[in-house]
Amino acid sequence: VKENEFLSVINNTLKDNSFLGDDCAFIEEGLYITQDSLVEDVHFDLKTITPRQLGYKSVAVNLSDIASCLAKPKYITISFSAPNSCTNAFIEEFYKGISEICQNYGVKVIGGDITGGEKIFISITAIGAKASPYKAARNCAKEGQVVFSTGFHGLSAAGLCLITNGDSSDKTLINAHLKPIPNIKEAEMLAKVIDSDIALMDTSDGLGDALYKISEASNVCLSVDYNKIKAAENLIQASKKYNKPLQDWIFWGGEDYNLVGTISKKAFDKLDKNIFTQIGEVLPLKDRNVIIKNQKDLPFIDKKVFESKVYNHFE
Amino acid sequence: VKENEFLSVINNTLKDNSFLGDDCAFIEEGLYITQDSLVEDVHFDLKTITPRQLGYKSVAVNLSDIASCLAKPKYITISFSAPNSCTNAFIEEFYKGISEICQNYGVKVIGGDITGGEKIFISITAIGAKASPYKAARNCAKEGQVVFSTGFHGLSAAGLCLITNGDSSDKTLINAHLKPIPNIKEAEMLAKVIDSDIALMDTSDGLGDALYKISEASNVCLSVDYNKIKAAENLIQASKKYNKPLQDWIFWGGEDYNLVGTISKKAFDKLDKNIFTQIGEVLPLKDRNVIIKNQKDLPFIDKKVFESKVYNHFE
Repeated sequence: VKENEFLSVINNTLKDNSFLGDDCAFIEEGLYITQDSLVEDVHFDLKTITPRQLGYKSVAVNLSDIASCLAKPKYITISFSAPNSCTNAFIEEFYKGISEICQNYGVKVIGGDITGGEKIFISITAIGAKASPYKAARNCAKEGQVVFSTGFHGLSAAGLCLITNGDSSDKTLINAHLKPIPNIKEAEMLAKVIDSDIALMDTSDGLGDALYKISEASNVCLSVDYNKIKAAENLIQASKKYNKPLQDWIFWGGEDYNLVGTISKKAFDKLDKNIFTQIGEVLPLKDRNVIIKNQKDLPFIDKKVFESKVYNHFE
Repeated sequence: VKENEFLSVINNTLKDNSFLGDDCAFIEEGLYITQDSLVEDVHFDLKTITPRQLGYKSVAVNLSDIASCLAKPKYITISFSAPNSCTNAFIEEFYKGISEICQNYGVKVIGGDITGGEKIFISITAIGAKASPYKAARNCAKEGQVVFSTGFHGLSAAGLCLITNGDSSDKTLINAHLKPIPNIKEAEMLAKVIDSDIALMDTSDGLGDALYKISEASNVCLSVDYNKIKAAENLIQASKKYNKPLQDWIFWGGEDYNLVGTISKKAFDKLDKNIFTQIGEVLPLKDRNVIIKNQKDLPFIDKKVFESKVYNHFE
């Protein structure tokens, strides 16, 4: 896949692993930094998202990366590029969306720029403060830990399916896609209870992606039980209505921005079970990265399954 | 002008002055942050710049902003968006340019992302450490200070003129445009000698722009002597060859990335005069923001002159 090819070239050229690995960079000043971009007609379509939602979501995506490092988001800068035809009203609504989410999470907009361009391009840098003495990274999973996740998986993909079909029947699914909630509070809760490093990722690229990447980076097998992964009732309805395999949305839908990770049993017991669900356990790595019990169409995820699914996701 | 209109809308929406004022934001962790973007066919044309030069220049522009805050650049993150037709060789050359300038100045690439898009879009965030107990900002000019600048002005604009005319006769001018030098070392020298806050800007939008903005933000008049502003011999030759007014390149050419500022006489005396040139002095503000002695075609810069020139520059 082109993106991975480019990443290899970049990493070979820069001669360090800056672009691979975790979602944020940690600097010695005690801060986590992440930069992510959204490009018109690649990441979003102005026919299906309002400028205000776009502003909100652009920030949400970056704050989710900060949350997945257990950091507390503090600042953002925003580069915004738009064609000459862009109106003042669009700009106002876009920055209202940004202002709204920043106020919700106590984040300050400290800079950025605005430039011309044929398509809308948004690049946001988010900066967060270290909030735990322990590390949260995809290579920290250890045998014997609990595999957990927050929220429902697949809602955003189902929401997008409804939107593209002009179906406004389920606002919850649509909002999951247009106005995702970064797990800032959930990250705070995790930071309070952990007593050692944990594996953690957000589900920006799907639950299956997060599970596979944690397994691969940590050299462990994650065994999860499909029956323990919460499937929302409206997701099940939508999958029937549109004849889409439910497990595809749940594992590969992406853009949900839930947290997935591994944590000691002792720390997990201190978490609110209405928010954090145990979905499996960490085993020694054998043949398969991820084993999915009680799921006959997707009984496991190995490199081959992962690549075929992720390719589909990028297409 | 559209950009200023947008900036007003943004500032009204965000309800603080995040987007106005200085080139970098200062955060309580002791760091300066800046984010700037370069858009294909707006800021650069792939017919006239190589991928390697583009990588180099994209970073240079951001490091120059860090230098203009007297900070020491430490980290960058890079968002890069390119069409599917982009080759691995392009990516490699682009990141080689980035790697080169980062090595030159001890800067570490700590993250970023790569995405698809119709045009090339580059957005870089640079992070620098505070290197002086004193502040360098455009509103710090005080009556009685010396007005100084580094380097030659107008070389980049002249270089672009040569490039667009297919004239490769003067490599110095062409390199001034394609491979500008951020004044990191000059900022270090300033940090060493100052004993109070100074006004400082880079000349990314031209000497005239920097002088006017310092005057306006500081409520002082900057009186400069045209005879003291170093005009490079090859710049004079090029202005004759292409029949371009020399003072237009010098004051409004932009993209030179020199430093312009105001500083106490005592501190100025400690600076290397091969690098820093006194070009004038700070007077109380009367009718005009900037007075230019010995320059009959541009005897002063007030709001009206500034806006007419800056408009031209954006067109």
